[in-house]
Amino acid sequence: MPTRPPARNPQRRAADRSDASLASLPKSPALEIYDTTLRDGAQAEDVSFSVDDKIRIAQKLDDLGVHFIEGGWPGANPKDIEFFRIIKTIPLQHASVVAFGSTRKASNPVDKDPTIQALLSADTQTITLFGKSWTFQVTDALGIALGKNLELIKDSIEHLKSKGRRVFYDAEHFFDGYKADPDYALKTIRAAVAAGAERIILCDTNGGSMPWEVGEICRAVQAECSIPLGIHAHNDCEMAVANSLMAIETGVTQVQGTINGIGERCGNANLTSIVPNLQLKMKRPGLGDRLGRLKDVSGFVTEIANLMPNKHQPYVGDAAFAHKGGVHIHAVLKNPATYEHIDPAMVGNRQRMLVSDYAGRSGILEKVESYGLTIAKDHSKVAELVETLKERENQGYQFEGAEGSFELLMRKAMGNHTPSFQLLGFRVVVERKQDDGTSSSEAMVTVKVDETVAHAQGTGAGPVNALDHALRKSLERFYPELREVKLLDYKVRVLSANRGTESKVRVLIESGDHKDKWGTVGVSENIMEASWQALADSIEYKLLARDRSSDQSSP
Amino acid sequence: MPTRPPARNPQRRAADRSDASLASLPKSPALEIYDTTLRDGAQAEDVSFSVDDKIRIAQKLDDLGVHFIEGGWPGANPKDIEFFRIIKTIPLQHASVVAFGSTRKASNPVDKDPTIQALLSADTQTITLFGKSWTFQVTDALGIALGKNLELIKDSIEHLKSKGRRVFYDAEHFFDGYKADPDYALKTIRAAVAAGAERIILCDTNGGSMPWEVGEICRAVQAECSIPLGIHAHNDCEMAVANSLMAIETGVTQVQGTINGIGERCGNANLTSIVPNLQLKMKRPGLGDRLGRLKDVSGFVTEIANLMPNKHQPYVGDAAFAHKGGVHIHAVLKNPATYEHIDPAMVGNRQRMLVSDYAGRSGILEKVESYGLTIAKDHSKVAELVETLKERENQGYQFEGAEGSFELLMRKAMGNHTPSFQLLGFRVVVERKQDDGTSSSEAMVTVKVDETVAHAQGTGAGPVNALDHALRKSLERFYPELREVKLLDYKVRVLSANRGTESKVRVLIESGDHKDKWGTVGVSENIMEASWQALADSIEYKLLARDRSSDQSSP
Repeated sequence: MPTRPPARNPQRRAADRSDASLASLPKSPALEIYDTTLRDGAQAEDVSFSVDDKIRIAQKLDDLGVHFIEGGWPGANPKDIEFFRIIKTIPLQHASVVAFGSTRKASNPVDKDPTIQALLSADTQTITLFGKSWTFQVTDALGIALGKNLELIKDSIEHLKSKGRRVFYDAEHFFDGYKADPDYALKTIRAAVAAGAERIILCDTNGGSMPWEVGEICRAVQAECSIPLGIHAHNDCEMAVANSLMAIETGVTQVQGTINGIGERCGNANLTSIVPNLQLKMKRPGLGDRLGRLKDVSGFVTEIANLMPNKHQPYVGDAAFAHKGGVHIHAVLKNPATYEHIDPAMVGNRQRMLVSDYAGRSGILEKVESYGLTIAKDHSKVAELVETLKERENQGYQFEGAEGSFELLMRKAMGNHTPSFQLLGFRVVVERKQDDGTSSSEAMVTVKVDETVAHAQGTGAGPVNALDHALRKSLERFYPELREVKLLDYKVRVLSANRGTESKVRVLIESGDHKDKWGTVGVSENIMEASWQALADSIEYKLLARDRSSDQSSP
Repeated sequence: MPTRPPARNPQRRAADRSDASLASLPKSPALEIYDTTLRDGAQAEDVSFSVDDKIRIAQKLDDLGVHFIEGGWPGANPKDIEFFRIIKTIPLQHASVVAFGSTRKASNPVDKDPTIQALLSADTQTITLFGKSWTFQVTDALGIALGKNLELIKDSIEHLKSKGRRVFYDAEHFFDGYKADPDYALKTIRAAVAAGAERIILCDTNGGSMPWEVGEICRAVQAECSIPLGIHAHNDCEMAVANSLMAIETGVTQVQGTINGIGERCGNANLTSIVPNLQLKMKRPGLGDRLGRLKDVSGFVTEIANLMPNKHQPYVGDAAFAHKGGVHIHAVLKNPATYEHIDPAMVGNRQRMLVSDYAGRSGILEKVESYGLTIAKDHSKVAELVETLKERENQGYQFEGAEGSFELLMRKAMGNHTPSFQLLGFRVVVERKQDDGTSSSEAMVTVKVDETVAHAQGTGAGPVNALDHALRKSLERFYPELREVKLLDYKVRVLSANRGTESKVRVLIESGDHKDKWGTVGVSENIMEASWQALADSIEYKLLARDRSSDQSSP
């Protein structure tokens, strides 16, 4: 590790927040970003990709500009064979698709080994083959002699090479193996190099290593190995990103990881943090301009994997540049560099100001003004609004992600909002029939617009869907523009979970029309009531936007 | 950083998985764990602690054995004044409670400064005071001269010392400040030391530093500073844990962080990873035996903060020792050290085997056997069960966390389950009254037990609660033991979110009686139908457990 004194920049420019003045000395620019979201990422609990999911993610990764996409282990999972069959018919711009699998079984001749055959059938230019480096794994997990393992590595690689494939060799458990018996661990690598492997990837398979160990061992291997090295880290000590970058600092040139760090146990090294760190902090080439797509790709994978987004995720999370503390909000409004380490736009993210008791009046005023309303700091309505917000937050409301409800609340508190309709009542019936076991849902609503009372009935896939249909039907005759509103997302969060089915629930709805999107919220012990609140706010917000645009168009 | 050659352990014992043979040379054993969950953690988006929440968390942290608990910023938030008033009446075993705040304002004399007064009123033995180290922050955020800032630091610390308090000095933005102007950054520290501070905490406030920078700068400061140093890192580059441990490797002795890493933007350094890394990997004292409470404390804070647990969290997440890949499951069954870096019990966690298409037959058989059933590997029912599971998973069912439903499904597939009751139908009505705006929920169910048909009606806080009440009522006359079943948790997850209120939902229910807990699941586009499935499985599972225990008691 270099210990040169830090550069002295008496005053950094605010715009230059990404400048790491202690960044390492220039290294070889060749750096390969190897994504294994579709293979190791799919090992994560709760993740199960369909073939179509995998194809869509592969195309997105290609757009992002990664160099390699590990598509799966053909043979271990029938889906993966199908994936490789389809992906080769799709032209990719930047990435090569790689098949992954193990060295042959000790009991099979290499040309009869089903894993090796399936790898060849996947028909990729490059194959990543993994084998054992740790004596304990060879003798205990495989149950074979140490010399035999070296044969498996050599045979398997030579066979794939003889069929015209490039081979990357994943040295599984390398760091544990090296700590236990460095001579044997290095022997496995020499066997792979001699057999024709083009990369040796050092794997911290169990994720148990510390960054200084990784740095030290990478340096030791580089002294012994003539071909480029890679790093494949797991996050069991929350060190996967640090371990990967530490390896690159020592001269390793291929970095393996997954989008959002998904993977078995605690996940794989998170490319969504590694790549911006490389590019913005270590000044390595990375993805160039395409880095601005990072947040989009992260969200896409979360969506396809059907996971909860982690809003605190570095660089790409919704909270990564969100400010809540009063001191922070105050300073960031003066100059974002005070509490933001990079310009969020560089990774496709944005700054947000949150509403909370810590933010106080200046935060609220900032919010009020961001909606185009002006108000004096000492206006009595501000105190009232702060009180209302606190009370709502205590009840479980949350306005982050529900800006539509927040704006309505604010306009009501400021006294400049006239409701477009009034709900008089609703009745929802869900029935499961005795004879055929099918369920039906029906809703009836009564609304009042000006002095007209209207009723409507709706059915749906479930009770909330039925309520949604009935509500729109009752209002569309008054406001035909509601026909263009679509419900994009519906989320239910159980609050105070320990009260079972009596718990409060919070419903968040995202709606959209041809040009905007807005979020609204409802909270109640009754899921129908909470859904009603969010649905009603969604419609009210749409009508508010209409009023606003007609204001603007008036002379 | 030491570069001594690694120790050679030709064969590690499986039980000794936590042994890090490259661990650093012995350092000073004095190491302070400083928790700021209640102050910096409370800055996280979505987190809002009540005073009672804060008291309960403080007691839990004390049980865990941390050395310092930063309780809040008295004055910045009215809750925090109340917290300090109450906490001093509660005896703690291990921890000292610390108040946090800023140096005085430039325009106030120190003895008239409201922040300084509020800090003294909190009546703690130790106060952590933060001040500016980065020239840019002094001139742009505070808008004062560089020399003036040194005065604020000196005055504020001297005043607190004169009132008999210990002072820790948080050097905000220290790493950015040092990179920009090391001389000035060091001057601020010298001012704090001269004024009587007992610790200087180097803060990576914006979370933008790399571990090698942190190591280098910590070493440089130690060469200049006579008193113990601390590290306060943020996670904006996913480096907070690595940066904290790198600082400790260089000799820093106080580590600040939060439980689960909660905090503003991307969060603070995660003590839940730092402490086991220190204790199990770096062989530092840490928390001793109390480390086994770590998972419990992590879950407690998640619960109180009402956040979604991160199952992939290192050490303490539910998936941290969960195995899904076929190769991994096979090896871990032979010896857990193959894919687990430590024994999960050391942090209060446990091993889990997941069911998935990657796990295949051997995983399923393992599961079947874990329920005390035996079956031949080639039995046709195994293939059938695998098919059924895949089909259910495709529909959105998930059996991780719903072991009750899984066991029922398995027993049905194996043909050794007789249902205790049959549901003939249900009808649920939710009504919001036109006159007073109140909502009511009512459910009617019809069940059949043996040849008897029974009806029951129930009301509740919402429709699911009403259905739950009606269902139990209809069955309690046949199975009085159902009275002891309690619903502990109710979770709703919207699947395929982009279909709005027409989306499928998955309902997970956790139930318990005086001795057991079990999870059950239901999936449907209709939330009532999904809830019904999970409720029915919960009751069926309870009755199954009864059958099992009466089997065992028969001669």
